[in-house]
Amino acid sequence: MAADETKVLPESYPMNGGDGKVSYARNSFAQRTAVDASKKFISEAIADLLDIEFDPILDSSIGFGIADLGCAAGPNTFYAVQNIIEAVDSKYAKQHQKSKALEYQVFFNDHVNNDFNTLFRTLPSPLRYFPVGVPGSFYGRLFPKDSVHLMHSSNSLNWLSRVPKSVGDINSPAWNADSIYCTGTVKEVVEAYSSQYKKDMENFLNARALELVGGGLLVLVLGGVPNSVTSSQTAIGKDYEILGSCLVDMANKGLISKEKVESFNLPIYYASPNEIEKLIQDNGCFSIVRMETFPGNRKHIYNSQMWTLIVRAGFEAIISNNFGSEMVEELFELYTKKHMDNVSIFSRDDVISLLHLNIVLKRKI
Amino acid sequence: MAADETKVLPESYPMNGGDGKVSYARNSFAQRTAVDASKKFISEAIADLLDIEFDPILDSSIGFGIADLGCAAGPNTFYAVQNIIEAVDSKYAKQHQKSKALEYQVFFNDHVNNDFNTLFRTLPSPLRYFPVGVPGSFYGRLFPKDSVHLMHSSNSLNWLSRVPKSVGDINSPAWNADSIYCTGTVKEVVEAYSSQYKKDMENFLNARALELVGGGLLVLVLGGVPNSVTSSQTAIGKDYEILGSCLVDMANKGLISKEKVESFNLPIYYASPNEIEKLIQDNGCFSIVRMETFPGNRKHIYNSQMWTLIVRAGFEAIISNNFGSEMVEELFELYTKKHMDNVSIFSRDDVISLLHLNIVLKRKI
Repeated sequence: MAADETKVLPESYPMNGGDGKVSYARNSFAQRTAVDASKKFISEAIADLLDIEFDPILDSSIGFGIADLGCAAGPNTFYAVQNIIEAVDSKYAKQHQKSKALEYQVFFNDHVNNDFNTLFRTLPSPLRYFPVGVPGSFYGRLFPKDSVHLMHSSNSLNWLSRVPKSVGDINSPAWNADSIYCTGTVKEVVEAYSSQYKKDMENFLNARALELVGGGLLVLVLGGVPNSVTSSQTAIGKDYEILGSCLVDMANKGLISKEKVESFNLPIYYASPNEIEKLIQDNGCFSIVRMETFPGNRKHIYNSQMWTLIVRAGFEAIISNNFGSEMVEELFELYTKKHMDNVSIFSRDDVISLLHLNIVLKRKI
Repeated sequence: MAADETKVLPESYPMNGGDGKVSYARNSFAQRTAVDASKKFISEAIADLLDIEFDPILDSSIGFGIADLGCAAGPNTFYAVQNIIEAVDSKYAKQHQKSKALEYQVFFNDHVNNDFNTLFRTLPSPLRYFPVGVPGSFYGRLFPKDSVHLMHSSNSLNWLSRVPKSVGDINSPAWNADSIYCTGTVKEVVEAYSSQYKKDMENFLNARALELVGGGLLVLVLGGVPNSVTSSQTAIGKDYEILGSCLVDMANKGLISKEKVESFNLPIYYASPNEIEKLIQDNGCFSIVRMETFPGNRKHIYNSQMWTLIVRAGFEAIISNNFGSEMVEELFELYTKKHMDNVSIFSRDDVISLLHLNIVLKRKI
């Protein structure tokens, strides 16, 4: 059932596990910025838009299901969930003064090889909810129908289910040999990436439309490029170029294969607000009931040492998988150095911040 | 909420993680015997006793929640769940010929430091259900009220939430210096253990009574001693005596502390059917709707090499925690040898098999 309805076979490159020096748990404060930036927006959206019918007599002790999709290993997911629960509590208290408190069940979702052990061991205490781990790609079904009241995804939907095959294929017009990401400047590469993004988002939205209860909300926090801007003009694009050039340097020194570098691409895509809006409208399952965009904060990118840990926590698995784990240490040493040498790029006026997008969707009945 | 209602602070000694030579995943075939022995009983109980109202129009796609409490790291939990799903499917098909299939959500529960990563990575494929991991002690609340349709626990309820304090206390009349388990022969020790068991089972039953939906079943598979038999007369008791004598040998050689051996006790208790029945009746939340007992299978205990791995997978954590991990290898080498030298004990006529108990409980409305 779950497997049958999964139309994609997603790649899975989890954030670094454990709680050591290069773990995601200890190097996710950049992503925390996104959680903080969305806090007020989400609270208000819940107050204004959450529309679950609670019968004050029958349902005084009903369970309320919250899912965080792409949770990684904390602590960001715990902050996000805490904020959601406070907002739902407040909304519920206004509706039903005399009712008992809701019982929350929180579904922490990520790939099957995410470090759930660390996630569970670092749960905050005391807990205001029943925690649950849900292994699997959110590009397929994860929950029974009509079973979750509010779903949230932060910093996750920029990860595609896979790198589009053509961009790593020397025989394809979309071969992206000179770059490790979708710069937005080569038509065929953009088409390959945006087509994969469209497929992934359709699978995501179709699955969520089945799983959310009526009146529930789907809250998305993700990065995007401003309309008519290419990723190559953004700070994160410049950063990927530095990482890519380190791989080229290592290939030139004969430390890794040049062919592997040319065929390597990140499964990351930043759409524009217009592209995302159209995609949700075309899908047809959800209405966009609230949306805001603003330039993302790039304060962390100026500290090359810290930034290296952030990038490593996110990309070590995919890099190891492609080039072997023995080159990772040297790569990130080189990257820190090169990042430091080029850090002035990130404060240039013509270098654009990625957009921070907050979107609230409601299932069409 | 979850934390507030947990009245115990359970000790947590998970089964050995990973999938290596001494892992529970590879050394749980003795427990598999219990799963197999319960299969027919559980299928029939579901066919005859499960009493969930499914509205064939409204609920044609309703989710059906199954929990396995104390699941460890597979594969036994997967076999047990598969059997339950087949039985529910069959029951549901008879009730609603034209309805769609149920969507199953399976909650795999164990202590927060259980190896959920291995559990998730070894899930069978293709999956007929949405898998979920639930970290926490089943002696406290785990789920929202009225949220799970069928709960199952196999080979778990013999583990107490803690060793009763008095049995490890040199100043207590219940001090159990000469043994590492509840032999059943010393009144004060029996009282300490059975009192802890009673508290734990009450917490367990109270929590489950809140979490199960009306008409749902609680299926318990556990070991027990025959009425009027002491644990010291059973094969497993003899086995614990061998393990205990290995600890004494190591203390005599000065390899571990004699005091630590004297204060060491396993958090394991085998009640008799009479004791369990009385306890469930006194608790009052559930009716025993079906129960069977028969002598447990002791075929695995004759193979000392294999048996050592089974015992080690279950007890390594608690032994390491008490004596330090550096002694574990030597202990289990000694244990294998001593077990082999004494293996004839297990086929003696006066050595009794532990009972295998299958119990089905139904919440009183």
